Amino acid sequence: MSVEIERKFLVKSDHWRSLAKGTVYRQGYILTTNKTATVRVRIVGDHAYLTLKGKTAGLARSEFEYPIPIEDAKIILETLCDRPLIEKTRYRIPLNNVVWEVDEFSGENQGLILAEVELIHENQSLELPDWIGEEVSGDLKYYNVNLCQNPYQLWTTKN
Amino acid sequence: MSVEIERKFLVKSDHWRSLAKGTVYRQGYILTTNKTATVRVRIVGDHAYLTLKGKTAGLARSEFEYPIPIEDAKIILETLCDRPLIEKTRYRIPLNNVVWEVDEFSGENQGLILAEVELIHENQSLELPDWIGEEVSGDLKYYNVNLCQNPYQLWTTKN
Repeated sequence: MSVEIERKFLVKSDHWRSLAKGTVYRQGYILTTNKTATVRVRIVGDHAYLTLKGKTAGLARSEFEYPIPIEDAKIILETLCDRPLIEKTRYRIPLNNVVWEVDEFSGENQGLILAEVELIHENQSLELPDWIGEEVSGDLKYYNVNLCQNPYQLWTTKN
Repeated sequence: MSVEIERKFLVKSDHWRSLAKGTVYRQGYILTTNKTATVRVRIVGDHAYLTLKGKTAGLARSEFEYPIPIEDAKIILETLCDRPLIEKTRYRIPLNNVVWEVDEFSGENQGLILAEVELIHENQSLELPDWIGEEVSGDLKYYNVNLCQNPYQLWTTKN
């Protein structure tokens, strides 16, 4: 198990685009009846992962991630995961001792761009690049699992 | 991925007890909103597994099983799985080219004993030992995931 401490922001300009090349992520969720657990299958390039995540407490969240055969992941995405799948291109941008991950969504979440940063501890100070906009760390609708249930394209109010 | 073809029966006598020693199984489910996928975490002795199962079609069901660290499994059972957990002792009984697995449940499913046999193909002939009772292969309430939601002790009509 690892514990993930994450802050999440909107972006307010395209200045991040020149800073990194993107990698395509394709992932799906098996939606759960309780609000505690998230079950995710993700394909990144030639690799695939099955991940369980626990409840968020503040910025922290327990995470259990296991590599699985990509052929399994394809079948699980196709036959077991809820729709829509989440498709996005992730740009990794190292800046000032942290790594920003900018996710540009496509498919039913096209138009949404989120920037996330993983921290060592919750009170870690963080220098915000000029392209970083409003913080949305606590806002449930930006969770990827919720973008599967209520994709961005269906939002009546968009930031 | 493997495909599991299974038949399930009640037992009608204790004649199976002298045929095998039991192993304790402790497992839990993260209940899903769709009826297609099952997410199970299981501890057997020193080993632990994370398993996804697909929808049952006839007697067959797709299964994706991955070994995980037992310490992870304990935390997942404790913090992410729905209640009650399933606790049972499994007796493996090889007979006439198949292996019968007799599950004697405890905890909130105490009193229930099920015998399962895994087959190579759906039409495989099967010799039934004298201690095998009614077949319950298609009966959803005997699925372990449903014994988590509606445990045997709460049933008003018991076989």
